[in-house]
Amino acid sequence: MKRDQAEELRALQDTLYFIGGKWRIPVINSICTGNRRFREIERSIPGITTRMLSKELKDMELNKLVKRTVYSETPVLVEYEPTEYCRTFGKIIREMINWGRAHKRKIAEK
Amino acid sequence: MKRDQAEELRALQDTLYFIGGKWRIPVINSICTGNRRFREIERSIPGITTRMLSKELKDMELNKLVKRTVYSETPVLVEYEPTEYCRTFGKIIREMINWGRAHKRKIAEK
Repeated sequence: MKRDQAEELRALQDTLYFIGGKWRIPVINSICTGNRRFREIERSIPGITTRMLSKELKDMELNKLVKRTVYSETPVLVEYEPTEYCRTFGKIIREMINWGRAHKRKIAEK
Repeated sequence: MKRDQAEELRALQDTLYFIGGKWRIPVINSICTGNRRFREIERSIPGITTRMLSKELKDMELNKLVKRTVYSETPVLVEYEPTEYCRTFGKIIREMINWGRAHKRKIAEK
């Protein structure tokens, strides 16, 4: 079967658009690997600011990538859980981690 | 074996950094699927401007992702070929195309 390059490119660009900037994928990865509270997620991603993480989590909640639950304790506890949809990025993230490792080895060889 | 989250995140961020903006991956994909000449690559990616593609190809040549060959005919013929390194993005691109297709089906179901 001939590959439909235009269709492949559209699928690829949809994904790139959805991934958006530099923080979406690290935040998805952090939540999918078990971090649940804002400060936990923030600490797990060096370089992210409170403001950027806050914006990212709001967008992700709107896009149904995370479920935000507020427990009315004192103090109030807020938890972020990955949705099934969020976990569909698993393979892309896995391949990106593999690529990053191979890249590091390649650099080290020089 | 316990997963080293910090190491995984560094590998992930290295990859994201390398992928850069919205054009790097579409350009890699275009060249890896057989487009060789500037105008061919440009036409295969709707929305990219001549200036952005030119910048992207220069960066990619510096990063050894493409090999640029000038054939001294009249008119001069310039070809871009993917390096082995360029092809290491194949799995990431494949997973991104898969994700984009699944996303489209999901949207269509609604």
